[in-house]
Amino acid sequence: MRSWADKLRKVVPYTPGEQPDKAGMIKLNTNENPYPPAPGVKKALESLDDQRLRLYPNTTAKPLAKALAKYYRVEPDQVFIGVGSDDVLAIGFMTFFNSDKPIFFPDITYSFYPVWANLFKIPYETKALDRDFKIVREDYRAPNGGIIFPNPNAPTSYYESLDLVEDIVRHNQDVIVIVDEAYIDYSGESALKLINKYDNLLIVQTFSKSRSMAGMRIGYAMGNPELIRAMNDVKFSYNSYTMNMPSIYSGIEAVNDEAYFIDHIRKILETRKWTESQLSQLGFEFPVPGGNFIFAAHPEYQAKDLFTALREKKIYVRYFDLPRIDNYLRITIGTDEEMKSFIDAISEITQVN
Amino acid sequence: MRSWADKLRKVVPYTPGEQPDKAGMIKLNTNENPYPPAPGVKKALESLDDQRLRLYPNTTAKPLAKALAKYYRVEPDQVFIGVGSDDVLAIGFMTFFNSDKPIFFPDITYSFYPVWANLFKIPYETKALDRDFKIVREDYRAPNGGIIFPNPNAPTSYYESLDLVEDIVRHNQDVIVIVDEAYIDYSGESALKLINKYDNLLIVQTFSKSRSMAGMRIGYAMGNPELIRAMNDVKFSYNSYTMNMPSIYSGIEAVNDEAYFIDHIRKILETRKWTESQLSQLGFEFPVPGGNFIFAAHPEYQAKDLFTALREKKIYVRYFDLPRIDNYLRITIGTDEEMKSFIDAISEITQVN
Repeated sequence: MRSWADKLRKVVPYTPGEQPDKAGMIKLNTNENPYPPAPGVKKALESLDDQRLRLYPNTTAKPLAKALAKYYRVEPDQVFIGVGSDDVLAIGFMTFFNSDKPIFFPDITYSFYPVWANLFKIPYETKALDRDFKIVREDYRAPNGGIIFPNPNAPTSYYESLDLVEDIVRHNQDVIVIVDEAYIDYSGESALKLINKYDNLLIVQTFSKSRSMAGMRIGYAMGNPELIRAMNDVKFSYNSYTMNMPSIYSGIEAVNDEAYFIDHIRKILETRKWTESQLSQLGFEFPVPGGNFIFAAHPEYQAKDLFTALREKKIYVRYFDLPRIDNYLRITIGTDEEMKSFIDAISEITQVN
Repeated sequence: MRSWADKLRKVVPYTPGEQPDKAGMIKLNTNENPYPPAPGVKKALESLDDQRLRLYPNTTAKPLAKALAKYYRVEPDQVFIGVGSDDVLAIGFMTFFNSDKPIFFPDITYSFYPVWANLFKIPYETKALDRDFKIVREDYRAPNGGIIFPNPNAPTSYYESLDLVEDIVRHNQDVIVIVDEAYIDYSGESALKLINKYDNLLIVQTFSKSRSMAGMRIGYAMGNPELIRAMNDVKFSYNSYTMNMPSIYSGIEAVNDEAYFIDHIRKILETRKWTESQLSQLGFEFPVPGGNFIFAAHPEYQAKDLFTALREKKIYVRYFDLPRIDNYLRITIGTDEEMKSFIDAISEITQVN
C-alpha cells in the first residue's frame, strides 16, 4: 500500500447507466429525450459573444433564474440554479439535512440518495413503498431530519397525487421536504403551487428530460427565499462560479420557447400511450407511468433475460439488479420509430419461447 | 426562528471579488485575461451539434482529458477534469485530506482553502510566509495530513522555485501535496515534470487565466493514475455528469491552439513588464510578479485609499482587508491601453497629495 493511501476518502462510487455508442443502436436506458432542444438553444450557442468568455460568469446564473421565475410565476430569489439536478440535490442534502435524526426516503427511489447521505454522513432510513410501488403516507409521520422523494418516482415512473405530497409536507413542518420533480412535466400537477403555503418545501427540476438538454447540465430548485439563500451560501462556500455562459444563455432560450416545450411533451405522451398499449397486449404489467419511461415486468419472463436479449439486438434499456425490482425493465420513451423497433424486438423475444 | 432553521448548515460564505458592470470601466480586479479565447473556441460553439445536447455528456470529459494529456505529454488517466479549478481543488480536499492531523497551507494564500477546510471539517494550520512573502520550507517538515499551496502564490504573485516545491513534496511522501498552478503559465517551470517521480504530487491548473475562458468553467488536475481515479470516484459519488458539451469541445480547441496560447502569454508578460517599471518609478514596491497580476504597496499611501480613489475613476483593482496584506493592491494585467489608463490614474492620485 502507498504510504498516503490511508488518507484517501473511501467511497462507493455511483454507477451511471451504461453509455453505449454503437452505430444503429436504440438507446432507451437513461431517460434522455429523443428530440433535440428548442431551436433557440442552437442560436444562443452560435451567437454567444466569445469576447465575454474571458470573464467569470454571474455567480447565481441570475439571467437564467429570472427567465425561470417569469415562466413559473415565482420571484427570482425563489430560484436556485445548479449543474444538473444532481448538483442541486447534493447541495440540498448538504444545506438542509443536518440533524441527528435520520432523513427518510422510499426504499425504491433514485439511487443517488443513499450515496449522498453516505458522502455527507447523514443518517437515513428508507420507507418501503407498498406492493403497488406507492408511498405509504403514514410512514412519514415519525420524527426525522428531513424528507426527500422523487415525484414521479424513479425508476417506477409512478406519480403520487398532490394531496399525498401536501400531506407529507404538512406533517413535517419542522424539517425540509425536497420533492424531486425531474419527470413532473410528463405527469400531473407540480407541487410548486405549494411553495408559498409551506416554507419547508423545496421543488427540484431539471433541463435534462423535458427540455432535452442533458448535455448542458442545468438543474434548479424553487422554494422560499430563505431556503434559496441558504443553498447559495453553501454553494458559494464550495465553488462560486459553476454555471458556464453557454448553459445560462441557452437555458434561457429553452425556457422562453413554451410552444416547443409543450409540443414535445405532448409527443412523448402520445408515444408513451401507444407503447403502454402494446406492452399490455404482450402481457407486460407496469405502474401507471408518470415519466418519460415505463417500468415494466412480464409474469412469464425474467427481466434480466429480456434485457440481455434486447441488448443483443442493440436495443438498450435499464435493468436494476436490486431487491424488489430485479424483475423490471425501465424503458425510456424514444421516438415513434424507436418504440416500434423496440416493440417489434420484444414481441419477437417473448414469442420465441 | 423557523422551526426547521436549526437543520440548516451554517457556513461562512466565500465572498468573490465584486463584478461591476459599468460602461467605460477598467476591470483589473479578478485576474481575468483581457484577450478573448482562441478563435477555435467560437467555432466549436457554433458547430456544436444541438442534436447531441439531448444526451448526457461523457462522465470524465474524456475527449478533453485526451487533448490535455497530449499537450502536456502525460497519459489520459493522469488527468482529472472539473468545473473550474475551484471544483477540482474542492474535490481534491475531499479526496485526499482525510487525516486527524492538520493540513498545512501558507497564511497568505488563496482564500478558498480555509473555506473548504471548514466545509469538509478538515483540521488545518497555516504557516506564515516570511517578510518577503516567501515560503519557509522548514515549516513543512512537521507531521501533517496533507499540504496545499498555490505557485505562483495568490494574491502575492510570487513564484517559488521548482527546487522548493520538490523539497516540500520529497519531505512529505506519506501525504498528498497539491500545487495549485492557476497562474503558472506566467512564471517559471511547472512542477508537472515531477508527477512521475513523486506519486504523492497533484498539479492543478485552469482555463480561466492563460486560456481566457473564465466564463466556461474548466479546471484540471494532473498526477499519478491512482490519485486521478480516487478523485473520479469521489466526483462520481457526488455528481456524475458535470462538464457540459460546450466546455468539453471548446476546451479542446483552446488546448490545440498552442500558437495563440503562447502569443497571448507573451503579450501579458510584456504588458506586465511595462507596468512593473511604471509602478516602480511611482515608488510602489512588490514581490517579483509570477502571475497575470502585481501585488503592490506604496510606502506613503494607504492601499485602501488608493483602491477607493481608483474606483472613483471607474478602475477596479482588488483590495483585501486582511492581516499583513491590508496595505497592498492586487492589480490584474489588462491590455496595454488599460494599463496606460491605470498608470495615468494612479500617477494622478499619488501626485495630488
